[in-house]
This record gives sequence, C-alpha cells and structure tokens, in this order.
Amino acid sequence: MAADKIETIVRLAKSRGFVFPSSEIYGGTRAAYDYGPLGVELKENIKRQWWKAMVTGREDVVGLDSSVILAREVWEASGHVKEFTDPLTECQSCHKRFREDHLIEAYEAKHNRVPERGLADINCPNCGNKGTFTEPKVFNLMLQTHLGVTMDDAGLAYLRPETAQGIFVSYKTVRDASRKKPPFGIGQIGKSFRNEITPGNFIFRTREFEQMEMEFFVKPGEDEQWFEYWLNERYNWWTDLGLKPENLRFFEHPAEKLSHYSKRTVDIEYRFNFGGQEFSELEGVANRTDFDLSTHAKHSGEDFTQLEQETGERWTPFVVEPAAGVNRGMLAFLLDAYAEDEAPNAKGQMEVRKVLRLDKRLAPVKAAVLPLSRNVDLSPKARDLAQLLRKNWNVEFDDAGAIGRRYRRQDEIGTPFCITVDFDTLDDQAVTVRERDSMEQQRVALDQVEGYLAARLIGA
Amino acid sequence: MAADKIETIVRLAKSRGFVFPSSEIYGGTRAAYDYGPLGVELKENIKRQWWKAMVTGREDVVGLDSSVILAREVWEASGHVKEFTDPLTECQSCHKRFREDHLIEAYEAKHNRVPERGLADINCPNCGNKGTFTEPKVFNLMLQTHLGVTMDDAGLAYLRPETAQGIFVSYKTVRDASRKKPPFGIGQIGKSFRNEITPGNFIFRTREFEQMEMEFFVKPGEDEQWFEYWLNERYNWWTDLGLKPENLRFFEHPAEKLSHYSKRTVDIEYRFNFGGQEFSELEGVANRTDFDLSTHAKHSGEDFTQLEQETGERWTPFVVEPAAGVNRGMLAFLLDAYAEDEAPNAKGQMEVRKVLRLDKRLAPVKAAVLPLSRNVDLSPKARDLAQLLRKNWNVEFDDAGAIGRRYRRQDEIGTPFCITVDFDTLDDQAVTVRERDSMEQQRVALDQVEGYLAARLIGA
Repeated sequence: MAADKIETIVRLAKSRGFVFPSSEIYGGTRAAYDYGPLGVELKENIKRQWWKAMVTGREDVVGLDSSVILAREVWEASGHVKEFTDPLTECQSCHKRFREDHLIEAYEAKHNRVPERGLADINCPNCGNKGTFTEPKVFNLMLQTHLGVTMDDAGLAYLRPETAQGIFVSYKTVRDASRKKPPFGIGQIGKSFRNEITPGNFIFRTREFEQMEMEFFVKPGEDEQWFEYWLNERYNWWTDLGLKPENLRFFEHPAEKLSHYSKRTVDIEYRFNFGGQEFSELEGVANRTDFDLSTHAKHSGEDFTQLEQETGERWTPFVVEPAAGVNRGMLAFLLDAYAEDEAPNAKGQMEVRKVLRLDKRLAPVKAAVLPLSRNVDLSPKARDLAQLLRKNWNVEFDDAGAIGRRYRRQDEIGTPFCITVDFDTLDDQAVTVRERDSMEQQRVALDQVEGYLAARLIGA
Repeated sequence: MAADKIETIVRLAKSRGFVFPSSEIYGGTRAAYDYGPLGVELKENIKRQWWKAMVTGREDVVGLDSSVILAREVWEASGHVKEFTDPLTECQSCHKRFREDHLIEAYEAKHNRVPERGLADINCPNCGNKGTFTEPKVFNLMLQTHLGVTMDDAGLAYLRPETAQGIFVSYKTVRDASRKKPPFGIGQIGKSFRNEITPGNFIFRTREFEQMEMEFFVKPGEDEQWFEYWLNERYNWWTDLGLKPENLRFFEHPAEKLSHYSKRTVDIEYRFNFGGQEFSELEGVANRTDFDLSTHAKHSGEDFTQLEQETGERWTPFVVEPAAGVNRGMLAFLLDAYAEDEAPNAKGQMEVRKVLRLDKRLAPVKAAVLPLSRNVDLSPKARDLAQLLRKNWNVEFDDAGAIGRRYRRQDEIGTPFCITVDFDTLDDQAVTVRERDSMEQQRVALDQVEGYLAARLIGA
C-alpha cells in the first residue's frame, strides 16, 4: 500500500494536471517537473502560507528576493566551490557513474556491515560486475554558466544551489533599510539548482527546485535556544497545515556528517516511503553559526558585526536556518491528504471514493459551481455565481457529465466545497453547498454564498 | 526632471530596501538586482494582480509553472538556437563589444540619416576611433549550462529566454487535464534568462528577469480579433492599476522587424525617459500564429490539432500572447507613483513631501501602526494592533523617532494608511487613521480597525 500510494499520487498528479515531467514530448529532461493548473495553485498556496507564517505575519522577519546568479566570489567565499561536492566513481565495465557514499550506504543496508575493502567489495548496481569502480573523484554540484560575450573564465558564473547566500551577502543592506537588529530574520522563497547525479523519486529530488529559507540572525550564545524555538515552530507549521504527526520525525545529523558550515542540523523528516527508505528529509534546521557572515566579511571587506550599545560588545551574528523544500513539501501534503473512503453512487450504492483531504488553505480549487445538469437556465446562473466567487478564490465551473462524477472529480483534487445550482434554485434563489470531507449538504441563499465561503476559508 | 526622476527612484529603492544591485559587496554582477523587503512585496503584489486578472479570475485561462531548464530539443524546435541572436561587433582598438544594430540606431538618432558605409562610418562609443569594428558575428542570447556528470555536448542545456515555450510543449497535457478547448489560455509567471550584451537602465534590462506570459489558443481566423481584445485588456490592466494613460503608448512593430514567429506585434510602451529614449517596452502582445505548436508537432511527433465536431475541420490553434515584464512593470509603477507635494511639519510649516501614490493593491505595506511616542502604555497597544492586522496584510510597527518623520517615511514607501495610537486611545479605545494621499485623518474604534481597512483594501 505504502509504495502504491506514491504511484497513485504520480498518476493522479499527471491526469489531473498537478505535476508532470518537463518537456515530456521530447522524452523529458529528468531535471525537473512542470506544475499544471492545479499544481501551480497548490504550490503557490504552500508558499503563501510559509510567507505569512514566516515573514509578513511576524514583526521580526522581513523578506527578500535575491537573484539566482550571484557574483562568483559569493560561492568562493561560502565554500561551495570547494566543498559542495559529491564523491563520484565510474564503473569501468559499463561506464555508469555513481555516488560512492550511496554505493556504500546501500551495501551497509543490505549486508548490515561496512564493505571492508570499500568499493572493491561492491557490485555495480547496473552491470553487476565487482572491482570495476574507479578511484572516486570530487564532483561539484553547482550548475555553471557563462555571462557576457566571452566563453572564458572571466564570465564563469554559478546557478545558486541554495537561496541562503543571497541573504548573507545582502545582510547589511537589508538590515539597515528595514532598521532591524538581531534577533531578526530574512526570509526568501526561490528556485535553486543542483546538478544531482541521481535525480529521482518524482518531485523529491530534481535538479531544479524551490526552497523556502529563512536566516535568523541572533547574538552568539542565544543560538541554541533559538534553534530549539525554530525547530519547534517549523514542526508545528507542517502539522498545522495537515501533516499527520505519526508521519513526521526528527533526525539529528551525526557530528561527523554535518555540512561544512553547520554546528548542528536537525531534519524534519516525512514518511515518504520511497523504495526501501521510510523517512526522508522535508526540511532542515541548521545552526550555521557565524560561518557565513564571517567568511563574507573576510572576503569582501564588509563589516557585518553588531555593536551592542549597552555593553560596548561587538559580535558577528550567529544564524539559525530553517530551510524547507517547496516541491517535497507539496509531495508530502499530497501523500498525507490522499485517502479512499466510501460515498453513495447514483443508485445509492456505496462506492470507493478517492479524496484529497487537503487543508482548505492549501486546496488548489476552493469551490466548484455545478449546475445539476447542462441546461439553458441552470448553466448561466451557475456560471455567473462562479464568476462572482472568482473575485476572491480559484473557482471552477463544471457542467459536463453526471453530477456524481463531477463530485468525484472535485473530491479527487481536494476541492473543499461543491456548490450545486438545481431547479429549485430558480424558485428559492438558493444553492446546495456540499462539504468535501463530511459530504454534508447545506442549503445556502445565493446572495449568502460569498459570505458562507469567506467564513470557512479564513486564511486561504 | 525626467532623468532625475529615475535617479530619485534608484536612490529611494536602495535606501528603503526596494531594490539594490545583486552581490554588491563583491562589486555586483551587472546581471541582476535583489529585491529587498519592500521590493519583494511590491513585486509579489504585481504578480498576484496579474494572476488574478489573467488566470484565476477567468474561466477561460488556466495556470502553469514550467521549469527553467527544458529539454534542449525545445529550443532547437522553437528556432531559438538558430534565431535568438544579436549581431555583435568588436572594436579592434579598445576591444569592447557592441551590438551592431544599437550602433547604427544611435548613429541614425544623432545624424538623422543612415550610415552610408555601415559600421565603417561609426566612431566607437568607448574609445572614439573610427573604422575599427570587426565584421559582426552572430551571438546567441541563451545562457548555457551542462546537466549530468559530463561536460560534453550530451549534457548541454539552456536556461529559458522566455517562459512561453514551456507552455507550448505542455499544451496538450494541460488542455486535456483541465478539459479546455480553444479559445482558452495558459498563463505563467517565472524567471527567464538572457545573456544581454548591454544590460542596463536599472532593472529595465537585466540578464535574469521575470515574465508574466499568457498564451491564448484560438481558431485560425479568429486570431486577429483576439489580438485586439488582448491588447485592449492589457492596456486597461496597466491603467487600472494606476499608470497614467499619458505615459503609455502603443508601438506597432514594422513588418521587417518582427520576430521569427510573429505575424504582428504591438508593444505597450511606457515613458521611462531613459537617457535619450522617451518610451520603452513594458509589454508585448504578439500574434505567434501556429508557428510554435506546428514546429513542436513536427519535431516531437505530437499532435496538437483540434478537431471541430460540428464541421469535421481539423486545425492547429493560433496563439495570441500578451507578455509583460515584472521588473520593468515594477519600475513603471514606481516612476508613475512617485510625487512630491507639500505637508505641514511639526511647526505647522509646509514642507516638501515625497510620496509614492501606489495603488492600494500594489502598496508593499498596507498599514503602519505608530504609537504617538515610545511609551510603556502606547507601544504595547500599538504592537498588539499591528500583530492583529498582520493576519491579513503586511503591516509595519514603528515607534522610533518623531511622529512626523514616521509619517514621511510611510508616505515615501507608499503605505496607504497610518494608524496612530495616542494617549486618548487609552481612554476612548480608538485610534487615528490617516490616509496617504489626502492626509485626512479619521478616528476609528480599535475593534473596528480591521473592518475599516478591509473595506478599503478590497482586492489587495
């Protein structure tokens, strides 16, 4: 069932227009996915909720949108040119390339022990040969491009592998323009790019992806308590928007596996149930210390220190970073919301019903207006109501096919409310509003529908 | 004054945290700008208004978010690999490079005639020498990168120079999943990248930028009337959000200068007043005919035709495309909104007031809550009110400095409402709401403030 669920979601995502492989008519790129009419709304809603919770909803956080292509010096200073690498090995028999650490992890998972002679003990997952791996080479994960009219090194630039560095290099400008001082944060949502050697697991690992990152600047010594605060806040954000606590867990990174900038990292993991791996990272909360601001200060000559008026003390802020993936967030919300229950069909018999129990704030379509049948009186009335509601929400009008099938379709895409215009509507100027999860129906006066929805779609 | 105005906006944008050069601490990239706390809100508001007007507000348009990196075949089929080029020449004396067409246009503007012997007649704008230009070479404007673990041609990929192609290649998937048929549209907002030879004019021309594009698919023969429809819609969108009609004009592209895919293109131009050039492109509306769908059908083998049930006719849809720039849109709104008038200072004398008369829907901060002075009673009350209002809007709290200076600051960033908590508030549980443009003040009960703003921020 667990692995099936992912396949169910992948199928639903494609057929309903949530997500499908990019450039599919040319065989796809494996680098990225496209988000269709429903996917783009769901993704925007996730981002909007994050922005509200993490930026505009708070006095102590401001927003930023920095560019994908930063100066090359940024990545030299940050350590990414040197450190943001994977160890890569090639099978000399079939010439496929693999990450050394992945090969070793797979070996350990299978045999419950380390490969004593390293790669020499491991069979190639592609051709099955053993002892064919080359000495691992360091492979940088940043995508390169060239700016300007030359192809020489002068124009070499990187696509950002994380949005965070854009925040660090503009720290002072933002701090001063917004007249903040630590503790305060700068939040950012945007695309990042990584030349992943093995993209996969649907939208979980792609070469082009979106991040929601917030860098929270604090006084050294206060970093550990802020770390706890943000870990807690972020966990609550995911559960408040509907993820079931039993599908979440914390994973503390062992000291020897921490990134080069981190003093402590805890992942919030979701039970994605990818083949063989139950939990995978949804969000990481890292204590980046003063690593980034200090290294940029050193390389640029800029002064990022804070002078405390009271004590005369001068310090470089420490940074606590909650960094979440938009795309894997969306996948988690879809997986968690998907359910099958029962609903009566046209003959009153109970049938399996597929339903996305998405939080109303996340649902891509907030309401569907359905004339009971395609009819010269009902359809225009329903269409007018849909258009009225579009002022505030994403609303569908649908008059094609049996009403039961139209309900099923809306359930499957997670629409919280179906509004049916029937023949009584012509007399009583009222409609039937059906709620997705309970399937309860309520008669609501036409001129009250907007208010009815507004009261039930707070924060959406 | 005109040229000054741009400089005024550039200064304001930096000091208040709207926009500033990317990676400035390392000398900048010239490729892009970063959008600070106010800029990111203004930019989001522009995008949200476009999305509402062009996508969710309409029954006949759906949304999409396709990836920046598409399969290479997309750009070969679309003609971009071959045609998306500029003619480039190098001065052999100073080795600076220029666009041939720009050099010739500048010559024509200055001398009021064409250079008879072409480049041979033109002095280098950098070193002043004449007869030093090389034969122009074709230079492709797409940024390249490499995916995967090899640096050979197998991994070559392009960063999209327009979002439109992502729409065309997913046309069928989106059409079928959303059960639409022409006339209908697919809208998209996203980043595009062009290796501009001469980026400049602040955020007007950058190598990384954001587009709002909508491809509207229609029956051939109906394309010309839809073209008129969309040109009109788009013009109205800009003026409805506040651009002054006298600062807008249409520019019809002469037939010989049309892009390789276009049958007709009309730009909506804004009076940016860049040195020497009064009007520049804000948005282009193009009749792309069936060029894109046909070429992708041919290259991919996919069938994009529409079968008309009634007539048995089969046709490939024509496309009408309104394509607007987010960044230049933002610059136009800032320029158009900026004004200087008079307001009384603390002593009752009239002083110059800088004010951004942004439409309320676009204003980055919707309201500022200001305690009359920093005070143990007033500040917490004001802070609580600000936090309450943050549920719905981006709201600032500010208790630093004289109240008059705080009003000025909010005027300068375009905040529609300033809400002052004063000593009377402690008695009458009411606050003073001051409107930005009229500077009129009104006493509003504390528990009515949310409703007061809601009634005045409709659609924001």
